[in-house]
Amino acid sequence: KSKNKSITSFAAITSVVDGLKMLYNEKLKPLEATYRFNDFVSPALTSSDFDAKPMVMLLGQYSTGKTTFIKHLLQCNYPGAHIGPEPTTDRFIVVMSGPDERNIPGNSVAVHADMPFTGLTTFGGSFLSKFECAQMPHPLLEHITLVDTPGVLSGEKQRTQRSYDFTGVISWFAAKCDLILLLFDPHKLDISDEFKRVISSLRGQDDKIRVVLNKADQVDTQQLMRVYGALMWSLGKVLNTPEVARVYIGSFDQKPVNDAAIGPVGKELFEKEQDDLLQDLIDIPKKAIDRRINEFVKRARAVKIHAYIISHLKKEMPALMGKSKTQKKLIANLDDVFAKIQREFHLPEGDFPDVDQFRVALARYNMDEFEKLKPKMIQTVDEMLGYDIPELLKNLRNLND
Amino acid sequence: KSKNKSITSFAAITSVVDGLKMLYNEKLKPLEATYRFNDFVSPALTSSDFDAKPMVMLLGQYSTGKTTFIKHLLQCNYPGAHIGPEPTTDRFIVVMSGPDERNIPGNSVAVHADMPFTGLTTFGGSFLSKFECAQMPHPLLEHITLVDTPGVLSGEKQRTQRSYDFTGVISWFAAKCDLILLLFDPHKLDISDEFKRVISSLRGQDDKIRVVLNKADQVDTQQLMRVYGALMWSLGKVLNTPEVARVYIGSFDQKPVNDAAIGPVGKELFEKEQDDLLQDLIDIPKKAIDRRINEFVKRARAVKIHAYIISHLKKEMPALMGKSKTQKKLIANLDDVFAKIQREFHLPEGDFPDVDQFRVALARYNMDEFEKLKPKMIQTVDEMLGYDIPELLKNLRNLND
Ligand SMILES: Nc1ncnc2c1ncn2[C@@H]1O[C@H](COP(=O)(O)OP(=O)(O)OP(=O)(O)O)[C@@H](O)[C@H]1O
Ligand SMILES: Nc1ncnc2c1ncn2[C@@H]1O[C@H](COP(=O)(O)OP(=O)(O)OP(=O)(O)O)[C@@H](O)[C@H]1O
Ligand SMILES: [Mg+2]
Ligand SMILES: [Mg+2]
Repeated sequence: KSKNKSITSFAAITSVVDGLKMLYNEKLKPLEATYRFNDFVSPALTSSDFDAKPMVMLLGQYSTGKTTFIKHLLQCNYPGAHIGPEPTTDRFIVVMSGPDERNIPGNSVAVHADMPFTGLTTFGGSFLSKFECAQMPHPLLEHITLVDTPGVLSGEKQRTQRSYDFTGVISWFAAKCDLILLLFDPHKLDISDEFKRVISSLRGQDDKIRVVLNKADQVDTQQLMRVYGALMWSLGKVLNTPEVARVYIGSFDQKPVNDAAIGPVGKELFEKEQDDLLQDLIDIPKKAIDRRINEFVKRARAVKIHAYIISHLKKEMPALMGKSKTQKKLIANLDDVFAKIQREFHLPEGDFPDVDQFRVALARYNMDEFEKLKPKMIQTVDEMLGYDIPELLKNLRNLND
Repeated sequence: KSKNKSITSFAAITSVVDGLKMLYNEKLKPLEATYRFNDFVSPALTSSDFDAKPMVMLLGQYSTGKTTFIKHLLQCNYPGAHIGPEPTTDRFIVVMSGPDERNIPGNSVAVHADMPFTGLTTFGGSFLSKFECAQMPHPLLEHITLVDTPGVLSGEKQRTQRSYDFTGVISWFAAKCDLILLLFDPHKLDISDEFKRVISSLRGQDDKIRVVLNKADQVDTQQLMRVYGALMWSLGKVLNTPEVARVYIGSFDQKPVNDAAIGPVGKELFEKEQDDLLQDLIDIPKKAIDRRINEFVKRARAVKIHAYIISHLKKEMPALMGKSKTQKKLIANLDDVFAKIQREFHLPEGDFPDVDQFRVALARYNMDEFEKLKPKMIQTVDEMLGYDIPELLKNLRNLND
């Protein structure tokens, strides 16, 4: 039953993504182009921005079972996966859907415009040599992309063995991800200073964090309670949010749960927890689409305000003489211009861009070349916000129920 | 087996307490008296200081089962016990051994020199009217004294319903206690600001704190894990020690564990936890005696140093003339005097009293009336420290094994 539901919801999501892409190209993109939003604020969205799958990142000390967790999810190894008790995964590996099994080195991945990883070039060549994309055809990977990471090491090792900004890279992925799984195992509970720094770099993404207490069947129930308690004790201090992080307790491996140590109730608990986590993973695409729609709406509002500002500046320019003087005056009084537009069109002040940054950006342009207000184009975007997007959402909800 | 062991250990403890009392009266007390240690530093110890039983205090929100816990331990109610779902216990009740069942009001308790509660008078009459001693003959109470407390209320209630310094009283008891049990139940997990303040007032006593997650059979295993995790999450922040507090999970009530919700393994876990906690309670007298011996040794060392200082000052006084001038000079140069004594008798600097406080205290005395050094008396205390106390400890250890 839950499987059927998730399939419907995947179909719905694909249709919403396609819907958004169409709305963007037909209704928002023309407005962006007309008023140079893409130069001023943000490049035009490409197909890959819409198509990028929700990402799940696995993080934890070495040997806590990150790579094994992925194997468990996929029911098979991804190309180039290494599993072992010593530190094994030595690079960041994006595991994604592809027509056949292959590994693409980081340097190539970072230049592929159709993959959302071009931003990683800022971490330099020594990072890119420790970055890789593993592709394979797999039904699960059609819906989410997984990010396997090298185990966090402690002390000197972390510094000497990693020639790039490890915490920075984690933080970059965290911002792009929809879910971050922090793995612990009963014998690797201590949160080293390095690990603390890594967790701190997730700040602002707290709602994406889920904790997994893995290999929980390796200790007996009473020990497990101690271990789990100790984990919560220190996590509470490190994450420092009042909301308690959700912890999934279990053994995420293909081997059956070792019920010698844990007994039948422990086994039942683990199975419930594993189901919950799987359900959480299945829900990601749906939550991710909500996040995207939200960001799309924010962008559309920003584009509208941008259009009002640009066209207002154009309107204020004289027909024949004193153009340069007027432009200077407008730039100097930009606060007043913003206030005027805000009043005229009843716009929320908080949606306006930063005046000073806008002033700097404006200096590069000749206002005389700006476009006049085209009410039809604005109206199209208003219709999109007021009708098309709610309609899209309604379809999504209907398909889900 | 564990019961037998505990009985032996109680016998051993009684013999150690009696031994200490004898050593004090015969060997240390004379030295204290000769050099006025009791005026300068600390009153002479009385029989009640040795005989006071180790105390266990119960703390928690109202209705978490503190009074029921005591009933469970004693297998019966103490005189004047009230149990109920609303806030019931409205006072601090010391439950201790006595020849027959009776309740003594706080005002009387506080003036009994043979009970260790005279210090509580500083909290005033409105506290004493909410303080009580419940006595009864009971084998357990021959070894420990229990302190039942009113539930911590939250917000306005705590302020308006309590006309005394609640946190101050808790803090006073915490210092005297050997164990502090913090009770929570799955439906009363939130740590209010008031409760936080109470817990903060236990600072410095962290090693005495044990946490009880009571009524754990009222939720199913998965819920219990959430509840327990959330408790540890917030406790870690409130207690703020790196060492994880020991939490006992169970249902401390005379009713059998409700295994409908929790299943057989849960039941087994609870029983193990209950046994552990009982063992922890049984161990208190032994740990308490260690603490006392430790404090006794510290006191003996302080008395010796005090004797050296006083006799040295006496020695420096002239036989006939210029007494007052010399006394003034000695007081002014007290640092040098301390340094000299330290070198002469090879004493650790850290064991010396605070120079400035000692200077102030000295001003009240006439040094000419001080006693000369009596090496025999010092030797007696040295023998006590070097031979009698180790012997006492050896007997205690032997009896325990
Ligand atoms: N749930 C589990 N129960 C028991 N053993 C496990 C479990 N998961 C993983 N292991 C074992 O733990 C070891 C480490 O596993 P794995 O290589 O997946 O960890 P990792 O977190 O990816 O480590 P690294 O950071 O070094 O890449 C392996 O020997 C694996 O078989
Ligand atoms: N282990 C338990 N399992 C189920 N119910 C319990 C348990 N312990 C106590 N109770 C019930 O909880 C209620 C409160 O118990 P009790 O009066 O002992 O709490 P208390 O902490 O002493 O409260 P107060 O602070 O008001 O004195 C009572 O109804 C009691 O029967
Ligand atoms: Mg790995
Ligand atoms: Mg009570």
